[in-house]
Amino acid sequence: MSATRRAVPLPKSYRLLNHGPTVLVSSAHGGRRNVMAAAWNMALDFDPPKVCVVIDKTTFTRELVEASGEFALNVPMRAIAPQTLAVGNLSGRETDKFEQFGLASFAAGHIAAPLLEGCAAWLECRVIPEPHNQQRYDLFIGEVVAAWADERVFAADHWQYTPEGDPQLRTLHYIAGGHFFATGEPFETAAP
Amino acid sequence: MSATRRAVPLPKSYRLLNHGPTVLVSSAHGGRRNVMAAAWNMALDFDPPKVCVVIDKTTFTRELVEASGEFALNVPMRAIAPQTLAVGNLSGRETDKFEQFGLASFAAGHIAAPLLEGCAAWLECRVIPEPHNQQRYDLFIGEVVAAWADERVFAADHWQYTPEGDPQLRTLHYIAGGHFFATGEPFETAAP
Repeated sequence: MSATRRAVPLPKSYRLLNHGPTVLVSSAHGGRRNVMAAAWNMALDFDPPKVCVVIDKTTFTRELVEASGEFALNVPMRAIAPQTLAVGNLSGRETDKFEQFGLASFAAGHIAAPLLEGCAAWLECRVIPEPHNQQRYDLFIGEVVAAWADERVFAADHWQYTPEGDPQLRTLHYIAGGHFFATGEPFETAAP
Repeated sequence: MSATRRAVPLPKSYRLLNHGPTVLVSSAHGGRRNVMAAAWNMALDFDPPKVCVVIDKTTFTRELVEASGEFALNVPMRAIAPQTLAVGNLSGRETDKFEQFGLASFAAGHIAAPLLEGCAAWLECRVIPEPHNQQRYDLFIGEVVAAWADERVFAADHWQYTPEGDPQLRTLHYIAGGHFFATGEPFETAAP
């Protein structure tokens, strides 16, 4: 596991997704594992924390998540942007993407899905079964049962990004066709 | 209306939300109007395009959206970050937030909800009724019936942000307590 990983209090875990980063969805079941990219994710509730993520019917991840009732949302840093793009472009049915793209992983605390190195934060989730949403919209709702962050970038319940920091540690915001934004300038404002 | 506003083809409208910006949800019904901030939003489908957004039961926006079956997602630029924070901090039941915070608006094309000046993009949405999601999770699903963007920042179906551009035109990513990130450095990557 990452030496700089620290637990995040569950009621603060929404802050790991609140700025809209692209995530990697990891899953495992019956000796198989997989990882896919998902820009379509959001926080859904504070306490107990819940999240939404879209997992297409055609994906191997969908099979593993439905079979296991679990998934992890990993929030990748810019250092693994090439891998984030790559795992969105082929199916884990034919290949182990972890091996193919050199993605190191470590064990989660509460679920079988592996967590990925090179990420800024991790949310371990159990599916709240909502068959209509899953079937009609490919929409999955999960309860966050554990949350972690890399203390180099998230500490004391807040993101710690500064203009002087290492740009490779920034989180990612995917658009399309290999185009991303890095998480940008932090600023504070007050009501007018 | 904004002189630099241009229509976005519906199948490309997911790109207006794909990078995870905080949005302003505008609504109108029976001569009343309102606007609230929502970091918890995401694209849900490409074509016909759909979106998700969380609208709490306690909000005046909730009343207007349920009564009208419509809402707009406005993607604010940094220039109106103070107003974006402010409209999340009080209820439109007691005050007209547009007047109170000097938010100029213009008519949408297909729905009654007003669209806000100072935004980079606009998605006009009709609610797809899902009473269970609305009641249990405060989760609303909408079909995007029209989409617009400011051509200074989104043109030819792509965001046009460059490091040299005006930082006040960047979109916003809200965290908590008045803390935001601006949309950051654009970059392109290839699979490893």
